[in-house]
Amino acid sequence: MLLTHHADLAMKSRARVSEDNLFPHVLPVTQVGRAAIKHQQPACVWLTGLSGSGKSTIAGLLELQLLGQGRHTYSLDGDNVRCGLNRDLGFTDADRVENIRRVAEVARLMVDAGLIAIVSFISPFRTERAFARSLFMPEEFMEVFVDAPIAECIRRDPKGLYAKAIKGQIPNFTGIDSVYEAPEVPEVHLRTSEESTRQCVERLLVALAKM
Amino acid sequence: MLLTHHADLAMKSRARVSEDNLFPHVLPVTQVGRAAIKHQQPACVWLTGLSGSGKSTIAGLLELQLLGQGRHTYSLDGDNVRCGLNRDLGFTDADRVENIRRVAEVARLMVDAGLIAIVSFISPFRTERAFARSLFMPEEFMEVFVDAPIAECIRRDPKGLYAKAIKGQIPNFTGIDSVYEAPEVPEVHLRTSEESTRQCVERLLVALAKM
Repeated sequence: MLLTHHADLAMKSRARVSEDNLFPHVLPVTQVGRAAIKHQQPACVWLTGLSGSGKSTIAGLLELQLLGQGRHTYSLDGDNVRCGLNRDLGFTDADRVENIRRVAEVARLMVDAGLIAIVSFISPFRTERAFARSLFMPEEFMEVFVDAPIAECIRRDPKGLYAKAIKGQIPNFTGIDSVYEAPEVPEVHLRTSEESTRQCVERLLVALAKM
Repeated sequence: MLLTHHADLAMKSRARVSEDNLFPHVLPVTQVGRAAIKHQQPACVWLTGLSGSGKSTIAGLLELQLLGQGRHTYSLDGDNVRCGLNRDLGFTDADRVENIRRVAEVARLMVDAGLIAIVSFISPFRTERAFARSLFMPEEFMEVFVDAPIAECIRRDPKGLYAKAIKGQIPNFTGIDSVYEAPEVPEVHLRTSEESTRQCVERLLVALAKM
């Protein structure tokens, strides 16, 4: 398969391989080279919002649309992280913070791999989102506030979690007995009780194209 | 950008988007779709061996060669994992096991993202490598024994770690006062004191092409 001129240059500039040396001096392949063959700017799209606000739905359609454009993506969410990498973590405050820390670090590795990483976690605390942001270059990180009124989220309750939380069966549930700190200056603010999923995803695609 | 017919089919088979529903039923993009636009079979290449056996050198050249073939790769090693995701871990036995567990889980996510993940860690224990293997389909996982006699590794000592370990300055150092359990049936057995780096990488490329 032919490399693009860009990738070819990126490789040549970082590789000096001596033919006969057991330990050739190979400067590592880096984000530039990995992203170049993907013809894209790597990025982390960080979706934050209450349970039921629509994060996973938006992430799913966003990834599908990006794949349709030939973009190379990965979605990180509770489904593929909580049952694997973070299976040792519970839901205490400390464990929830560690959960988000690891997710942010994995998203960083994904972006280093040249991918567009789409992260969908409630991530209720400003400090943990600020930590996530700190791992990236400014042009790589897009904080997206997936905003819906708590009453609407309780009405939707797609997983029946609010019903349980209101009965006291789930302690520390965000929006019920644990705080959600809304983003102050997110790159994108989506209002899922006013805009359709399709409109929200369209706005994210436009924002991504501008990055 | 046009999708290949393969990727297009893979997407269509998994997506049913209702235009007007706030929560459209979007079946998630999966490994098949992500890998299809990369025109490759995702895989985890797991390099195990003593410190100084040549894992990082081989991984670096392997990734460079794969990039040159237009393959989408990522390297996981101490450099990008120990200082980020696993910065909370030390070098006790428990922490070393947790280190490898997380690396294996991240490699699984990378393969799920459609990438060829190249893992370079001493990973001295059979049980932890068996755990890593258990996360993958048989055709996705390639255990590579990067084999060099301990005397040769001590002679090379590229980071000066053996000198310190022999003086007792680094406890639990693999090969000195902590065991290395050699793979019994690795997919590939490289002998870096007999083969050049280039020969080793060539054999890995052949083995990968057969997967």
